Amino acid sequence: MREVSALVQKGARSFIRIQYRILAVFAAVVAIILALVNTFLGEAGLAIAISFVIGSFASMVAGYVGLLVATRANRRTAAAAATGGLEPAFRVAFRAGSVMGLTISGIALLGLGLLYLMWDYVFPLANPLQLWEILVGFSFGASTVSLFARAGGGIFTKTADMAADIVGKVEQRIAEDDPRNPAAVADAVGDNVGDVVGCGADIFDSNVASILAAAILGAAIDASIAPTVPYGLLPLLTATLGTLSSVISAFFVRTTRGRDASGALNRGTYLSTIIFSVLITLATFLLGIPIVIAAAAILGLLAGVVIGVVSNIFTSDTGFLSFRPVRSMLHAAETSSATLILSGYSYGLLSAIPSVLGIAIAMIGSFLLGALVPGLTPTTGGVYGVAIAAVGLLATHGLVVSSDAYGPIVDNARGLIEQAHAPKEAIDVCDRLDAVGNTAKAITKGFAIGASALTVIALFAAFAQLAKSYFGTIIVVDLLNPVIMAGGLIGALIPVMFTGLTILGVQRNAGKMIAEIRRQFKKNPRILAGKSLPDYDRCISIATSGAIRELMPATVISIIATVLTGVILGLQALTAYLGGAVVTGLILALFMDNAGGAWDNTKKVVESLAYDHKQPRYREIHESSILGDMVGDPFKDTAGPSINTLLAVLSLTATIFLPFIAAANLWVYTILFHP
Amino acid sequence: MREVSALVQKGARSFIRIQYRILAVFAAVVAIILALVNTFLGEAGLAIAISFVIGSFASMVAGYVGLLVATRANRRTAAAAATGGLEPAFRVAFRAGSVMGLTISGIALLGLGLLYLMWDYVFPLANPLQLWEILVGFSFGASTVSLFARAGGGIFTKTADMAADIVGKVEQRIAEDDPRNPAAVADAVGDNVGDVVGCGADIFDSNVASILAAAILGAAIDASIAPTVPYGLLPLLTATLGTLSSVISAFFVRTTRGRDASGALNRGTYLSTIIFSVLITLATFLLGIPIVIAAAAILGLLAGVVIGVVSNIFTSDTGFLSFRPVRSMLHAAETSSATLILSGYSYGLLSAIPSVLGIAIAMIGSFLLGALVPGLTPTTGGVYGVAIAAVGLLATHGLVVSSDAYGPIVDNARGLIEQAHAPKEAIDVCDRLDAVGNTAKAITKGFAIGASALTVIALFAAFAQLAKSYFGTIIVVDLLNPVIMAGGLIGALIPVMFTGLTILGVQRNAGKMIAEIRRQFKKNPRILAGKSLPDYDRCISIATSGAIRELMPATVISIIATVLTGVILGLQALTAYLGGAVVTGLILALFMDNAGGAWDNTKKVVESLAYDHKQPRYREIHESSILGDMVGDPFKDTAGPSINTLLAVLSLTATIFLPFIAAANLWVYTILFHP
Repeated sequence: MREVSALVQKGARSFIRIQYRILAVFAAVVAIILALVNTFLGEAGLAIAISFVIGSFASMVAGYVGLLVATRANRRTAAAAATGGLEPAFRVAFRAGSVMGLTISGIALLGLGLLYLMWDYVFPLANPLQLWEILVGFSFGASTVSLFARAGGGIFTKTADMAADIVGKVEQRIAEDDPRNPAAVADAVGDNVGDVVGCGADIFDSNVASILAAAILGAAIDASIAPTVPYGLLPLLTATLGTLSSVISAFFVRTTRGRDASGALNRGTYLSTIIFSVLITLATFLLGIPIVIAAAAILGLLAGVVIGVVSNIFTSDTGFLSFRPVRSMLHAAETSSATLILSGYSYGLLSAIPSVLGIAIAMIGSFLLGALVPGLTPTTGGVYGVAIAAVGLLATHGLVVSSDAYGPIVDNARGLIEQAHAPKEAIDVCDRLDAVGNTAKAITKGFAIGASALTVIALFAAFAQLAKSYFGTIIVVDLLNPVIMAGGLIGALIPVMFTGLTILGVQRNAGKMIAEIRRQFKKNPRILAGKSLPDYDRCISIATSGAIRELMPATVISIIATVLTGVILGLQALTAYLGGAVVTGLILALFMDNAGGAWDNTKKVVESLAYDHKQPRYREIHESSILGDMVGDPFKDTAGPSINTLLAVLSLTATIFLPFIAAANLWVYTILFHP
Repeated sequence: MREVSALVQKGARSFIRIQYRILAVFAAVVAIILALVNTFLGEAGLAIAISFVIGSFASMVAGYVGLLVATRANRRTAAAAATGGLEPAFRVAFRAGSVMGLTISGIALLGLGLLYLMWDYVFPLANPLQLWEILVGFSFGASTVSLFARAGGGIFTKTADMAADIVGKVEQRIAEDDPRNPAAVADAVGDNVGDVVGCGADIFDSNVASILAAAILGAAIDASIAPTVPYGLLPLLTATLGTLSSVISAFFVRTTRGRDASGALNRGTYLSTIIFSVLITLATFLLGIPIVIAAAAILGLLAGVVIGVVSNIFTSDTGFLSFRPVRSMLHAAETSSATLILSGYSYGLLSAIPSVLGIAIAMIGSFLLGALVPGLTPTTGGVYGVAIAAVGLLATHGLVVSSDAYGPIVDNARGLIEQAHAPKEAIDVCDRLDAVGNTAKAITKGFAIGASALTVIALFAAFAQLAKSYFGTIIVVDLLNPVIMAGGLIGALIPVMFTGLTILGVQRNAGKMIAEIRRQFKKNPRILAGKSLPDYDRCISIATSGAIRELMPATVISIIATVLTGVILGLQALTAYLGGAVVTGLILALFMDNAGGAWDNTKKVVESLAYDHKQPRYREIHESSILGDMVGDPFKDTAGPSINTLLAVLSLTATIFLPFIAAANLWVYTILFHP
């Protein structure tokens, strides 16, 4: 057990080393571009670049801590399951998750707080507006690195998974985790890399972006309208209270007794929601901020819970009353592979509807609540309400991440136990813990997507606010203007392009790894005989460098398209572009996450003991369900969960390049129309 | 040959009879609702309802003519291929297509022209604005019936296809078109119903909507700014000139010599484009309308051609230079079924990018051209430019439909020849003609989608124009307002919902037909022995009524959601709702059409003689390619091509209920905020 775990740890470190080296180069290049483009901002130009580097570094640390904790906790959880049973195993796994979740909260609060103090008090800027551009630099750094962690990790894990399955299971007919397979370690590393590092960096960057957007809007209110009430500081305070609620609740989750792991996690979620609600209400009251703002934050948090519940209905076997998509998909699988694919596609699309409606209702609700704030115009207050709802949604992310990281930890522990031929009861313990982890994962993804939607809306408004503060022009994005609508159409293509390129990237990369595995088997027949260890590192290195190579074009195109749209079509079309990206991005993300989850669970039902394995067509039905799962894998682990980070990157690109875009657009406009 | 053809004709008539009966009831109900809701408009309220009924009827006639021509032409084309060879067969098939295409043009021009004369000259209205609401009624009728024809036909054809394949090919191992299969006739009817009736009604309704939108904008210009220049009449004139160009070009296509059918069709397309460009330039010159408007119309037409070419690159085996998606998909099929599905999905998504960019460029270009019109504000002129581009895109639809209808005619002729055991050369003639038909079909779908995008943008503007004319309020749809953005998100869900429900509908309906086929085989074993004819009509009736039953909820939800969004969130959010629907609708439509086409063609390559049938894994590769085709079938024949009609229905719903929505929203707003 220790040996395999050590290999996985080594592999994961090897991935991190290669990825972070490339990311450091990328970050350096972007930092230089940022510094050059912003030279006309004076000292702030350099500060933006530095802040970007710090943000990138913070995101890398957040991911690394997660990986460190998770890869170590695997073995301990496995050992606890083998010796102590369910309760100690649960405690070890959940505690490891909590360490990660709370570290991430801490880094976000620390980074933003220190940078703020630095440029507001230590080296006050000539133009205080530039303070926000500097903080946006931090957030931009966090998000770009997070995109690489999430999508790069997703390509990595699915590359290894697909290649290991195709050469191992199909061609050589050896078991899934067989150590003779050169891709076996890469596959195990991928589970950690994709889920833990990706999720950690992802929630980290959303959190930073949501706090920042609300702070920009709040500061503008403070500056112009209500200087006595600290609207600008409330977002940071909200996040701090959320972290506090998470810490308290995590303590109670730890004391769970008996066998009900799912109940323990749910209790944690409910408890943190309640504690947060009480704290935020108290805080606003004490600060003299109208109570409706606290209500907006709570509404945001509730929206996150609703999205999680919907994801669960569409992807788990239980469903809701007589509406049980996974059951229908099972019937479809019994008809043919094509009908299974089609019904997963259809239910995946339909699953986006209640979640997006929930987001829309949260947006409208928090807008109306914010509009009730006395002394502010309805629009100013309303938009601030939406921004606070986004912060509220993510406030208890410490606990959410704890439950999420818990999933892959248990999953890996199960793999270790299996490879170490531990007793059957230990595997059973892990299986029971694992089932709970899957539900937690679905809920976290819902949180992440909901948060990104509200955050991007808030970033919109922050972007417009900064534009107004800088140039005095009020941005009105009139969709009835065909040029602006064209901007919306172009923006809508970005998540589509990103999805298409990353999924093709997985395939291309898997092709390379398949060639490498075949080469090793051919060159050294002792590997298959079990007498010689395969070269695991080659596979890890192919997966790593391939993941980044396949991801780079999609990322660079996304950033350049954003800047170009702004420069050529103007700030209004750029805002519509961001809106278009949110619309397709949200729907694609929910569709792919849930379709992938539903196919996965359909396969699990077919493989479960409750299903009739002796029926005449079982083999075909099982093969169909495996096909569904393979199609769904890159949906739910590569493209789907990356999209919310992509949306943050797009919005932050627009915001950080705002001064440049505005200047360049004026120049283009002058050339075109007033030569 | 004559016998089978007669059965198909009878089956098609049976479908039409049942469908049109249900549609008549539906139209009557909607007409009553329209009359009731609009009673406060006085006499115009009733006129809107009547106009709606006329529009529905006209759309039914357009579809019926197509069906009549196509089912008769099948047999004649087959006979011509068997006796005269390629040239006469091509001439018969193309001439039949032309009859259909030009009839459709004629009905549109006649209907709009007569209604206009009726309410403008014969019974002039007290409020001339209501004239437009009445004409919108005609367009709304045309579009709702077209939606049923397109999507209902799509569900019909794929229901029959899937059921016939699963029971026939898989369970009983009889050939695809075997007359012993009770679903055989339904399958053949489906080819006509889905492609010919659907396409006819679809292009008909887009054409009417685009002319109308441009006419509303033009009339507003005439009324307020430039009464000497007939901007309001130009759209009808543009469409007339387009039809004229189509007639002239069709004449030249007929005189083609030699064996190059593809060249003949392309010559027709190019010729009609050139003739139209000359005519429209001349006409604007003579009418004193600035030449830039003619340029906008030509730009629209060119955009349609570009989208068609892009579809062809992504779906045909040829590709573009070294970019050959179908080749990559073939390699993916050689790896596994899952990789084939994933690569079709990815390339389908990527195929939306150049087309949507083309549409965006056409929008921006025609806006800028229109903005140059002297005497108009840039926005007024620009939006009119976009509307005229939409009319221009569809102007030569007479010829486009001719080429499109030609495809299924040849396809069916091939089926007839095969069933009648005609000589191999005749089959070869049809195969060669069929390959050309597939390309033509891809191009037509591109035209239809491009037209719908531009038309909906124009309908937007017409909607805002009518709102302004009615209530004096200028609609500015500011995306930065979260309530309006929420409207956009809700609208974006409509095509997603429609796609999910129709594809699930195909599966559910196929399930019923499978049960019926099994029942017939079990009850009467003489059917399988070939000694007794199966009950074809039962299958046709299941497919027909099921198609409408599965479609009705999606259609009703779409209409009600549109009205509710307007009533609850207001006209601005409603406009954003339409914008959101266009964004996801366009992308989904292009994605599904092209992914489906690419899977279909991958299968064709695998089955072609050029592919190595003797390689060891051929059977698996062939099965993968069949799976891809089955998944793609409802993409490209059910959901994909229905979406552009859906978008027209949404926009027209908003426009026709505009007075009601505005009044009800005021009422809701008063209750909520000023009790």
